Amino acid sequence: MNKLLIAVSVFLTVSGIWGLNSKKISPASAECIDCHIQATPSIVKNWERSSHAGTINDEHVVSCAECHTIDPEKHRDTFDHNGSRIHTVVSPPDCGTCHPEEAQQYSRNLMSHAYGNLMHNSLYRHLIRSVTGEENDIEDSCLHCHGSMIQPKGIHQRETVFGEMEFPVLEGWPNQGTGRINPDNSRGSCTPCHTRHDFSIETARKPHTCSQCHKGPDVPAYRVYTASKHGNLYASNHESWEFGNSTWVAGEDFTAPTCATCHISRVATPEGEILSRRTHQMNDRLPHRLFGLIYSHPHPANPDTSIIRNNGGLPLPTELSGEPVRSFLISPDEQEKRLSLMKGVCSGCHSGSVIDSHFKRLEQTVARSDQLVKTATGLIGKIWEKGIAGGPGRGDSPFNEGAEKIWTRCWLFYGNTIRLASAMMGADYSSFANGHFQLSEGIRQLREVLEKSPNGKFEK
Amino acid sequence: MNKLLIAVSVFLTVSGIWGLNSKKISPASAECIDCHIQATPSIVKNWERSSHAGTINDEHVVSCAECHTIDPEKHRDTFDHNGSRIHTVVSPPDCGTCHPEEAQQYSRNLMSHAYGNLMHNSLYRHLIRSVTGEENDIEDSCLHCHGSMIQPKGIHQRETVFGEMEFPVLEGWPNQGTGRINPDNSRGSCTPCHTRHDFSIETARKPHTCSQCHKGPDVPAYRVYTASKHGNLYASNHESWEFGNSTWVAGEDFTAPTCATCHISRVATPEGEILSRRTHQMNDRLPHRLFGLIYSHPHPANPDTSIIRNNGGLPLPTELSGEPVRSFLISPDEQEKRLSLMKGVCSGCHSGSVIDSHFKRLEQTVARSDQLVKTATGLIGKIWEKGIAGGPGRGDSPFNEGAEKIWTRCWLFYGNTIRLASAMMGADYSSFANGHFQLSEGIRQLREVLEKSPNGKFEK
Amino acid sequence: MNKLLIAVSVFLTVSGIWGLNSKKISPASAECIDCHIQATPSIVKNWERSSHAGTINDEHVVSCAECHTIDPEKHRDTFDHNGSRIHTVVSPPDCGTCHPEEAQQYSRNLMSHAYGNLMHNSLYRHLIRSVTGEENDIEDSCLHCHGSMIQPKGIHQRETVFGEMEFPVLEGWPNQGTGRINPDNSRGSCTPCHTRHDFSIETARKPHTCSQCHKGPDVPAYRVYTASKHGNLYASNHESWEFGNSTWVAGEDFTAPTCATCHISRVATPEGEILSRRTHQMNDRLPHRLFGLIYSHPHPANPDTSIIRNNGGLPLPTELSGEPVRSFLISPDEQEKRLSLMKGVCSGCHSGSVIDSHFKRLEQTVARSDQLVKTATGLIGKIWEKGIAGGPGRGDSPFNEGAEKIWTRCWLFYGNTIRLASAMMGADYSSFANGHFQLSEGIRQLREVLEKSPNGKFEK
Repeated sequence: MNKLLIAVSVFLTVSGIWGLNSKKISPASAECIDCHIQATPSIVKNWERSSHAGTINDEHVVSCAECHTIDPEKHRDTFDHNGSRIHTVVSPPDCGTCHPEEAQQYSRNLMSHAYGNLMHNSLYRHLIRSVTGEENDIEDSCLHCHGSMIQPKGIHQRETVFGEMEFPVLEGWPNQGTGRINPDNSRGSCTPCHTRHDFSIETARKPHTCSQCHKGPDVPAYRVYTASKHGNLYASNHESWEFGNSTWVAGEDFTAPTCATCHISRVATPEGEILSRRTHQMNDRLPHRLFGLIYSHPHPANPDTSIIRNNGGLPLPTELSGEPVRSFLISPDEQEKRLSLMKGVCSGCHSGSVIDSHFKRLEQTVARSDQLVKTATGLIGKIWEKGIAGGPGRGDSPFNEGAEKIWTRCWLFYGNTIRLASAMMGADYSSFANGHFQLSEGIRQLREVLEKSPNGKFEK
Repeated sequence: MNKLLIAVSVFLTVSGIWGLNSKKISPASAECIDCHIQATPSIVKNWERSSHAGTINDEHVVSCAECHTIDPEKHRDTFDHNGSRIHTVVSPPDCGTCHPEEAQQYSRNLMSHAYGNLMHNSLYRHLIRSVTGEENDIEDSCLHCHGSMIQPKGIHQRETVFGEMEFPVLEGWPNQGTGRINPDNSRGSCTPCHTRHDFSIETARKPHTCSQCHKGPDVPAYRVYTASKHGNLYASNHESWEFGNSTWVAGEDFTAPTCATCHISRVATPEGEILSRRTHQMNDRLPHRLFGLIYSHPHPANPDTSIIRNNGGLPLPTELSGEPVRSFLISPDEQEKRLSLMKGVCSGCHSGSVIDSHFKRLEQTVARSDQLVKTATGLIGKIWEKGIAGGPGRGDSPFNEGAEKIWTRCWLFYGNTIRLASAMMGADYSSFANGHFQLSEGIRQLREVLEKSPNGKFEK
Repeated sequence: MNKLLIAVSVFLTVSGIWGLNSKKISPASAECIDCHIQATPSIVKNWERSSHAGTINDEHVVSCAECHTIDPEKHRDTFDHNGSRIHTVVSPPDCGTCHPEEAQQYSRNLMSHAYGNLMHNSLYRHLIRSVTGEENDIEDSCLHCHGSMIQPKGIHQRETVFGEMEFPVLEGWPNQGTGRINPDNSRGSCTPCHTRHDFSIETARKPHTCSQCHKGPDVPAYRVYTASKHGNLYASNHESWEFGNSTWVAGEDFTAPTCATCHISRVATPEGEILSRRTHQMNDRLPHRLFGLIYSHPHPANPDTSIIRNNGGLPLPTELSGEPVRSFLISPDEQEKRLSLMKGVCSGCHSGSVIDSHFKRLEQTVARSDQLVKTATGLIGKIWEKGIAGGPGRGDSPFNEGAEKIWTRCWLFYGNTIRLASAMMGADYSSFANGHFQLSEGIRQLREVLEKSPNGKFEK
């Protein structure tokens, strides 16, 4: 296709779709679009559908150059591209140029620290090694969600529709994990939820977006949701709901919550009373962390959890006996405040009696699941003691032997599922699918390991 | 918001949405709405969308007071609330005031007896205890679907938007399980399927509603459906189907069945021939019960299955060898009649040859799955005999030891799945997901337990 | 209903719905419809919605007789039916009358050979027997997807709405498996994807259709897709996509791919550049086969894989050590060509850098998963050597003992999942659900079998 044809096609697209804003594309972005409507047409089309394409900021709509050329010196992936200095990886500070509050909140979100919280925790590194064999595939497993570290590694030549061109070599790219370490040394990524390049709020508010990382047995929030009445109502009725209104009206825009409703969005009553403010610190309304660790515990006070040490020196927010390590965790007052924010969302649809009873039941189930996990942990402790498996006391990985894998399943999969299923009312998932039945089976298996094994190979 | 503002907003809502029926809200219900449009706005909005809001019954539309104030003396959860005597928990007899046939049919449904059928069966109590540890979390597991027993336990004070008020303390609440024991001593609940407060027939007819309790490995009907051609067509095309017509026309309103089509709804041909009458006794078209027990068997004749005893004195509809206990089960004639009702639904879309071949194949697969389960049961029998595990002969739980858990998986998960997958043509689920592969593995494991263990700790 | 009434209803239906084409129904098909609008109304209604009903071929629209009476002598299921010679099972050669290119391509598709590739492979027969007990239920398990062999077995009488009539007895029917052996001795079936009788391209292009056979743990492509960004965008946004345009425009008709987009459809840019031609040979864009066998390998050159033998004489495309058996597999040049076709689809939405990085990462992960599977296979080899399990060296099934089942899980479920999850970017499924965690656990279990067992029962 020659330049003239492209120009005509861009003109037609512009006049047909962008309408009034057609003249508002900055010269720099117009140049990008000139080629990319041919090189990567869907990206351009997606952007055309975005709010960015209709939002005038500083005389021009927010388009390619407005994001990909911010602060070129800070971005180590900046390269010369047809006369422009552009960077591939748009980072939260880039988005924060126009969305400073969201960027701030997200920086306090555990998710923005997901890379370091995993990779700078010696216990989790043991888990990674025991699960992936070594750590060779972690960009295709753990770091897919936690985020990779993106490292520019020079420049390479590549054939394109416009002839041979130069591009940066980016180790760890592509990746849209929530805690990505970007070439400007910032943490996080907005695109796991606000998918490029239409950044649709409708998509972000639908549960499928969260499900990309919250579906596996280690954090089955989405699966529990699909077994709940809320999830049933979403699946049955969402086609008539309105997902685009920034202030989301309970009972009018939607009749049952998605993940975003309870954890993120600004929710209001039909009369305009605000039930909850928007937050991008996802644990703002959560008194406890229910998954990802051995026991439930008050949420960490700092999003960088790699700093946590329990009394035994392990990087865990509880002792192996379940006691929370208070100094690293939010206070009971803060927990109370967060619970009350969550109850505020519930009150759009439920009476106070139902809400209070629900949270009282959740508290009991969580306590009980912690108790069952403590039984399992007591058994693995004895298994370590008897030397049937190595364990942390010998400096050995606590995750790589048969009995240790059973114990890992008990808390990482089953205890976790029981708590989430109570919190989100999806009991069909926790009874037999990956919860009570399996936890009781795991405890029984640990008992048998202990009973049947003579003292083990690790014994001295 | 002051009283005047509320009144205005109620008036506007009323005139805008309820149209002609606006004046038809009973004075008692109008009082409820006056406050609840502020206290729980979504409930009011949901009700506005319901058929109830447009249905005149005895001069007024069916609204809050019409349901929540029926027979106050019978409901032990009745309390004084702003001058009215209302009860929280609406029961099937309440719904039966206007829907007597549905209430009658549902009372003959196994589901309305789900609480007692579980809790008054000594074997199932063993299963509950072995699965949940004790029975502490059963409201967050088994009883979530089976229904809880709701017990009024006095009155408590609670802060509301209208100041401090008194409410009943209800043990076991909230719960929408199908066999709930209500404070008026009635059994069951209409709301697991007819979700409060819009009671939408569209929601009830979509498979997600049934999936809330029929998704786990113990009864994976929904998972099997999603692997079937029927489920594929639902997922691919339901957006253009019509779910609201009380008489549901095959080939016009829908082109593949949902759960409701085959098991509940009144289905007709485009020419108006009725293919099946509506029923709320869900096994009306089912000759066999395929899941939930060790072997398939003719459906129980009485919805209260806690009365069943086999020749060995166990509360089971078959012997441990698989023989059905005929005296408690429907007759072959009744089975034939039910099968023929089901075939009537199929005939909307399928020729007689296809229908007959399908059910012949189902019969063979069910018989074969029972045979495989019998192999597993024979092995656990020998394991009990040798004293490797305790078992019912010693008065011990048959569900709590390692080998017993393998056996439980064999029938409760795998045999069950094979039968459902044949019935609903979702073989991809039963081959490797939770069926044949796992059943053959389970039988092999039981064999190894038997071969490798010396006589056991239970031996005398 | 008497004949007159039926005639009137047919007339009304015809004039109301078929409009201009009403007179274009062939006399033979009109006779079918006369009765079948009553006997199987949904089939007629579905056909009315099809493109066939609007497509004039040789003066008439494509209706019942046009497909069900082709070449009566070739179809062994042909029978006399109200004066016509019709056959029940429409085969790919029948469809190929109007769609010769598609039929040709499909004949080169592994899927059209799915029956023989399973049933004529002695190792797979061992697998079937070990999984299903014997081979009694294979029509309700393996052959549901692979296709059954349909055998006419005489004629039987059956009561219909029009009185007693004669129909052929068809063993193996109903079945819509992809490699069905039809009564005209042809292979395959078009209806697994192009569902009877509307043959909707919209349905075929939605992922639920593929999911019917690609959801289980042996080939979890659909599950991986639902955990990917592509799957998220489909679930969140497909309601506004256009699935019916034969040339499918990236960025306009859809904004993220379904299965069909990458593997089958003709895809174009908004400017009309063709990114990929339509193919019904599903591996046309696939350099490697990632699932179904022990190791990944270049795709078989011939769709009949039952002819493959490795150096050890086993019907496998690789040695047990993982080496591909080059003579039966496509060449590196052909692999390169196929990869480049796939990259062509990607280029609708992604830049070359992202595409190249993705496929480089995939290559690494696949190689690494093969390495892990090789570890597992080495262990089962030693288990066979020590006589702990029988194995193929003794002419015994390699799939029926405890350790063998663990090994089977390692490659058939877990290695497979890791590869697919990398290929389709659904890492949440491969990390903990059915991939890395389970593969590392399986390898550990095999190691324990080897360490703990004395020399086995098979030892001489």
